[in-house]
Amino acid sequence: MRLMTCDEINDMRVSGQDYKAGCPPVDGEMLEDHGAAPEDGDDQVDPWSVSSSSAKGVDYDKLIVRFGSSKIDQELVDRIARVTGKTPHRFLRRGVFFSHRDMHQILDAFEKQKSFYLYTGRGPSSEAMHVGHLIPFIFTKWLQDVFDVPLVIQMTDDEKYLWKDLSLDECHRYAVENARDIIACGFDVNKTFIFSDLDYMGASPAFYRNVVKVQKHVTFNQVKGIFGFTDSDCIGKISFPAIQAAPSFSSSFPQIFGERTDVQCLIPCAIDQDPYFRMTRDVAPRIGYPKPALLHSTFFPALQGAQTKMSASEANSSIFLTDSAKQIKNKINKHAFSGGKDTVEEHRKCGGNPDMDVSFMYLSFFLEDDDQLEKIRQDYSSGALLTGELKKCLIETLQPMIAAHQERRRLVTDEIVQQFMSPRKLHFNC
Amino acid sequence: MRLMTCDEINDMRVSGQDYKAGCPPVDGEMLEDHGAAPEDGDDQVDPWSVSSSSAKGVDYDKLIVRFGSSKIDQELVDRIARVTGKTPHRFLRRGVFFSHRDMHQILDAFEKQKSFYLYTGRGPSSEAMHVGHLIPFIFTKWLQDVFDVPLVIQMTDDEKYLWKDLSLDECHRYAVENARDIIACGFDVNKTFIFSDLDYMGASPAFYRNVVKVQKHVTFNQVKGIFGFTDSDCIGKISFPAIQAAPSFSSSFPQIFGERTDVQCLIPCAIDQDPYFRMTRDVAPRIGYPKPALLHSTFFPALQGAQTKMSASEANSSIFLTDSAKQIKNKINKHAFSGGKDTVEEHRKCGGNPDMDVSFMYLSFFLEDDDQLEKIRQDYSSGALLTGELKKCLIETLQPMIAAHQERRRLVTDEIVQQFMSPRKLHFNC
Repeated sequence: MRLMTCDEINDMRVSGQDYKAGCPPVDGEMLEDHGAAPEDGDDQVDPWSVSSSSAKGVDYDKLIVRFGSSKIDQELVDRIARVTGKTPHRFLRRGVFFSHRDMHQILDAFEKQKSFYLYTGRGPSSEAMHVGHLIPFIFTKWLQDVFDVPLVIQMTDDEKYLWKDLSLDECHRYAVENARDIIACGFDVNKTFIFSDLDYMGASPAFYRNVVKVQKHVTFNQVKGIFGFTDSDCIGKISFPAIQAAPSFSSSFPQIFGERTDVQCLIPCAIDQDPYFRMTRDVAPRIGYPKPALLHSTFFPALQGAQTKMSASEANSSIFLTDSAKQIKNKINKHAFSGGKDTVEEHRKCGGNPDMDVSFMYLSFFLEDDDQLEKIRQDYSSGALLTGELKKCLIETLQPMIAAHQERRRLVTDEIVQQFMSPRKLHFNC
Repeated sequence: MRLMTCDEINDMRVSGQDYKAGCPPVDGEMLEDHGAAPEDGDDQVDPWSVSSSSAKGVDYDKLIVRFGSSKIDQELVDRIARVTGKTPHRFLRRGVFFSHRDMHQILDAFEKQKSFYLYTGRGPSSEAMHVGHLIPFIFTKWLQDVFDVPLVIQMTDDEKYLWKDLSLDECHRYAVENARDIIACGFDVNKTFIFSDLDYMGASPAFYRNVVKVQKHVTFNQVKGIFGFTDSDCIGKISFPAIQAAPSFSSSFPQIFGERTDVQCLIPCAIDQDPYFRMTRDVAPRIGYPKPALLHSTFFPALQGAQTKMSASEANSSIFLTDSAKQIKNKINKHAFSGGKDTVEEHRKCGGNPDMDVSFMYLSFFLEDDDQLEKIRQDYSSGALLTGELKKCLIETLQPMIAAHQERRRLVTDEIVQQFMSPRKLHFNC
């Protein structure tokens, strides 16, 4: 099953490049965060490609073992509810964010009035963002609201330049355009700094210093082991992981954190980004910084669902944030893979399979009401709800959601983007 | 024979690392500037170590063939005299600058009123600079004076952090302290920009953009071939060559050159830095920039001369810019390797060998008067001049030169350093 990664980068996959997460690097420094080695038939999950041989998609429990992370269990979800005094976000209730590293440490400290900051990001490879791209941002906004902490969002336009056949100006323009969509998720400008790497590297000696620090403490052998780079890769790709690592350290943002180098970082991201942060967590203590904590999400399925190859250039593989109500309706009706039966009669008799139905999967991401979602699951499973009716539910959920996003995005002026993207003090006393 | 490279970095040599300049990189892109492959017994010359098995030191004519550069012949020296209307600098008259790439192109353009800019640099590995370190700066100052062009000087403090066991702050401090010595060479603040990489990378998005451009167009295979990097090297070293390459392009300095990306660069440097610029010249046309031209100098010998290993931490291996008149006198008398005979009688009878005499070599770098130098050569060869008398000549040349340097350095205030190191417009209209 081909799923959407954070980046829709099918076309960038380096051929013959095997994912080796879980293998310790050769240079004698074990990455302690690494789990078991992958076995034949295991899902492939790295920052550039995600694939599974199973119709149900990636086996996330196996991935937790392989990556050496921890499951977000009911106890942790309950604890987040207790500490924040808020109902856990549906992504926590439903296991969309399913894995973590050191989240209990973050909560322990938070209970002792020791704050932290959030860091997430996006690789701006095109102007077009789809609903799947919103997952980390929707969740990060919730975390910002309930914990009331600073947030930094990295737009890796330099990475996209290095990996894709795009000019620097194009990548930078995509970074700014994508920032507009991110801002439209409702982030508080007083608590959020969004930055393009191409801009911020040239605006912050502190950031570059941390990049160089990381670069000194990671060998080619290590990035080869973690990311599968080869001798034919350009030196920009080889050193890039340090640039994604650096925002994990509060000293990369002196305008926000002043002299403090010890503010811990919490990174909500899709699980395919974990290799970057396993590397970061390995380096952190060696350069005198705390390890970032992580919250990992599952992937967002393509409309075509199981066994279908998702393509970034394929407009019909997902719902884009620019789609009209009509396009949304048509795409779902035409392309959303159905877990229903071939005929109405059969469906009424045997019921559909929500676990393989893309419309149901999408609803589980976006429908807030747990009871309503559960009723849909039961009715679809029993055959009471037909595929067309299920699709109608999804259409009626997504149409207003996307329309509202478009309206909010329309209100994001150049000045507002500029404000979010200016290095500045945030409304926190660190 | 162990000679002083631009960096005194004996202790940094990566063991087992063979120099492979001259071998085309594996990735299918031939570096056209490369010459013949090195053979057994050839001198070793790369940015991190220089050694020769010959008592007379590196065979520079052979190096020109191996590196694929061109000899600075009498015709070129005469042409520089003609174009500038000035007597060629003693470093040109005496073959200290002995090799070049595209210097005729620079002069062709200059004759057509098309200007260029100068770029040189220093790796600030300690506070202590010795007289050998001044060679490129003395010559660059002369070039600036006779051609009246802008000059940028890169202090690679990031490189020193990556290669040596030093903190970022130490490397940055050495950059500023070394800049003081460079400024004391007499550069015009209105025409000169000195920058620390650690500062400028974080102050100039244009510089970082060019770094990333170079990084996209050079593979690990290529830097492995050019610099001998291995899989155990840190990713910072592997990507560093792009940072030394970027100042070769005028668009790295928009504050000086505005929108212009086509101002050609001329780089005076010691020949051991050529691998960086062979790489740069290979990349330049592929990213739409002119190739930098080069002027290469020979190395500056250690006091101990032939067959002696020079050590950066060995205070007696050279004359430092901080040495007192007495220290200079003692060091030369005690340590300068002599080409004279064992006894006065024998010396008077057979004469000394100036080509192996370090005092004579130093005089050929620093004594301006050609006739006086020639007379010393003849008298020493004939035996008329004794080693002690030759050493006295050198002492009397260096003592006032170093004292004058120290006096000029004393006058370089923090404000002046700050001025030189601030990104700003220079007094040129580009």
